[in-house]
Amino acid sequence: MAIDRTHCQQLDAQDPLSGFKARFQPPQKHTIFLDANSMGAMPAAVPDRLASFCTDEWVELRRQGWNHTEWLDRPRQIGDAIAHLMGAGQGNVVVCDNTTVNLYKILTYAWQSRKSGSTILTEDGNFPTDLYVAQGLNHNHPDPPEIKVCASRDELMDSFNTDTAIVYLSHADYRSGECWNMADINHRAHAIDALTVWDLSHSTGAIPVDLTGDDADFAVGCGYKYLSAGPGGSAYLWVNPRHAENGWPTICGWMGHQDVFAFATEYEPLSGAGRHATGTPAVIANEIFSCAAQIWQEVDEKHLWAKHKALGDLTMELLEQECGSLGVTINTPREYKQRGGHIGFSHPGAGPVSEALLAAGVVGSFRRPNSLRFGLGPLYLSYEDIWEAVSRLRKILESGDWQDAKYQTVSV
Amino acid sequence: MAIDRTHCQQLDAQDPLSGFKARFQPPQKHTIFLDANSMGAMPAAVPDRLASFCTDEWVELRRQGWNHTEWLDRPRQIGDAIAHLMGAGQGNVVVCDNTTVNLYKILTYAWQSRKSGSTILTEDGNFPTDLYVAQGLNHNHPDPPEIKVCASRDELMDSFNTDTAIVYLSHADYRSGECWNMADINHRAHAIDALTVWDLSHSTGAIPVDLTGDDADFAVGCGYKYLSAGPGGSAYLWVNPRHAENGWPTICGWMGHQDVFAFATEYEPLSGAGRHATGTPAVIANEIFSCAAQIWQEVDEKHLWAKHKALGDLTMELLEQECGSLGVTINTPREYKQRGGHIGFSHPGAGPVSEALLAAGVVGSFRRPNSLRFGLGPLYLSYEDIWEAVSRLRKILESGDWQDAKYQTVSV
Repeated sequence: MAIDRTHCQQLDAQDPLSGFKARFQPPQKHTIFLDANSMGAMPAAVPDRLASFCTDEWVELRRQGWNHTEWLDRPRQIGDAIAHLMGAGQGNVVVCDNTTVNLYKILTYAWQSRKSGSTILTEDGNFPTDLYVAQGLNHNHPDPPEIKVCASRDELMDSFNTDTAIVYLSHADYRSGECWNMADINHRAHAIDALTVWDLSHSTGAIPVDLTGDDADFAVGCGYKYLSAGPGGSAYLWVNPRHAENGWPTICGWMGHQDVFAFATEYEPLSGAGRHATGTPAVIANEIFSCAAQIWQEVDEKHLWAKHKALGDLTMELLEQECGSLGVTINTPREYKQRGGHIGFSHPGAGPVSEALLAAGVVGSFRRPNSLRFGLGPLYLSYEDIWEAVSRLRKILESGDWQDAKYQTVSV
Repeated sequence: MAIDRTHCQQLDAQDPLSGFKARFQPPQKHTIFLDANSMGAMPAAVPDRLASFCTDEWVELRRQGWNHTEWLDRPRQIGDAIAHLMGAGQGNVVVCDNTTVNLYKILTYAWQSRKSGSTILTEDGNFPTDLYVAQGLNHNHPDPPEIKVCASRDELMDSFNTDTAIVYLSHADYRSGECWNMADINHRAHAIDALTVWDLSHSTGAIPVDLTGDDADFAVGCGYKYLSAGPGGSAYLWVNPRHAENGWPTICGWMGHQDVFAFATEYEPLSGAGRHATGTPAVIANEIFSCAAQIWQEVDEKHLWAKHKALGDLTMELLEQECGSLGVTINTPREYKQRGGHIGFSHPGAGPVSEALLAAGVVGSFRRPNSLRFGLGPLYLSYEDIWEAVSRLRKILESGDWQDAKYQTVSV
């Protein structure tokens, strides 16, 4: 039986997370944002928090803010608030720096911590900045790792060998949304004495991640996608407690010192993951992230993941039902356990279609050469939103509107 | 003839920068903030910029912000706006990351670029995080530099030799405010084929810095002190153009790639200083910094430095005139060219005095064991503010109020 709008409305009526939609500020027009894989929605509490931050903290306290506010506590506080979304223990997630800097710190630390082997194993589906970080290590480090960039998942699986020091992957592919089986990769890596470094940017806040249960070694992720930390917001890192004392952090800074305000001349690393915190925290960015963290703390991750799965299933079913005969092919695996946070699909005119969708108030994202992505933020998207978005897509494809000259200049 | 309040008011009446005071938001009570060396004042434009950022950019654009706003241009745009404060050319200053991460990137890059020698020469008056970064390099790097931390300026000057690879200094001492002669150090360093790395955190926006004219090699600095970037705001780095193509940056990330949105698999560094930009810029922090950058762009640096010098001279004269007989001794050198952004002075009860000053609405800062600092932000402090602050200090010392039990718990 075909899915219709009424069915979607019924799903919304039964949604245990529906109350969270009001915790995010809606856009003025009825734009449907399906770009949570790129930029998450804004918590409604942010403008007030910023106004109060400006007046009560920056203007009235100035340097006393370090003493009288939570500025210094945020990196760990926010880390603790999002830890349950990735199966991490309290105190093991630190919010700091951007994803690239964290990848660099953690990959270098993992390289220094390696047990055997001389190769970092990855795939070309890893996000470019992840690859650049590894290439930089190969290029700059006096005792450099080899970097093996596999062209396919099969090649990667066949490349595990005694020369493998680190397996370095994005949990979910930023283009196709295809997802690795983290437990299996960790298990295979450990069997050959290799360590694993995961980029969770396209996973945390959308799909189940269980770093502890799946026995990962290290992880890093982006704050501003599913986690709604805000544009350019702080990223995070996680260190398995068994590696917390492996050595000094890659970047030794005062926020990773065991006694920050002693202003000691000699560096002594803080115990645990906190040693990777480098310099002054990104206070304002963290105030914004803390608004999202407040929400995440209240979210039952099992409900979150179930809703995300249901949104993804619905998106795929509707894309096929409504647009399957109009040239749309789904790229993301059907199998739930192989899916990341977004649904990817292709169309021969994906670029112009993406532009026509923007004009129709549906914000997905385009990736060359011919794929589109709908990123699904479970806390603020309704099932009816998915119905509406796919309906607008169908109209564009049916009418051929996307072939209009004005949609041929495509933004990335 | 003794200086009085009327004299200070006359100086204010002649101040060519007096119009800038209104560009910063004043505190509600008449608190005098003398902590620009720790946290600069808030540009009055910030709250509106943030409100518009939240609604018009984050909520309404989401991921399209990358295409339709200046988010990606800010790191270079802000760098260009503050370049004249440090004698830097356009395009050579990049706003990114925090100071510690930038110190790490630049010191490591300098180490890879060294011409000869195996030692990083520094002094224990360098800020702790600067020292930790160097110690981390010594501890972690497979081809590590030796770190020589000199206990005095004389020892440092005597330690220049053929083994010196890098001279690594804070331009102005964070405690005493004593300043290095940058031209002289650069000259001596180059004479022995060493490179220089300067931390300008306590200089830029207060005292003359001329990286190009003084022939420095590298520099890094903090955004949230004199530059008013806001708590935890982005830091900056500068690379002398002759070193811009020395090699790959320490942290290779997508924002330092020559074609960011090509999503290429292979890293190719951007030309120039921009290659050091690592990952996603700290968008929200940069929006705030851009409010300050707008102001800095309008400021004639010669007026700025002249005002800062006059404020510093007045502070020292008044401290002596009003408090010299009450136990206050000035630590900062009298000679203008040896002074950084703040005036340091000591008193046997500096900690409790600092607390009593806070209660009286004067925010300086205390450093163990017995020194106080007044950081002077030339754009928003009047000469009369200095008079008023020193008057309040005199009252506290004369009355012995600072000996009250409630001031004995001292914050740092």
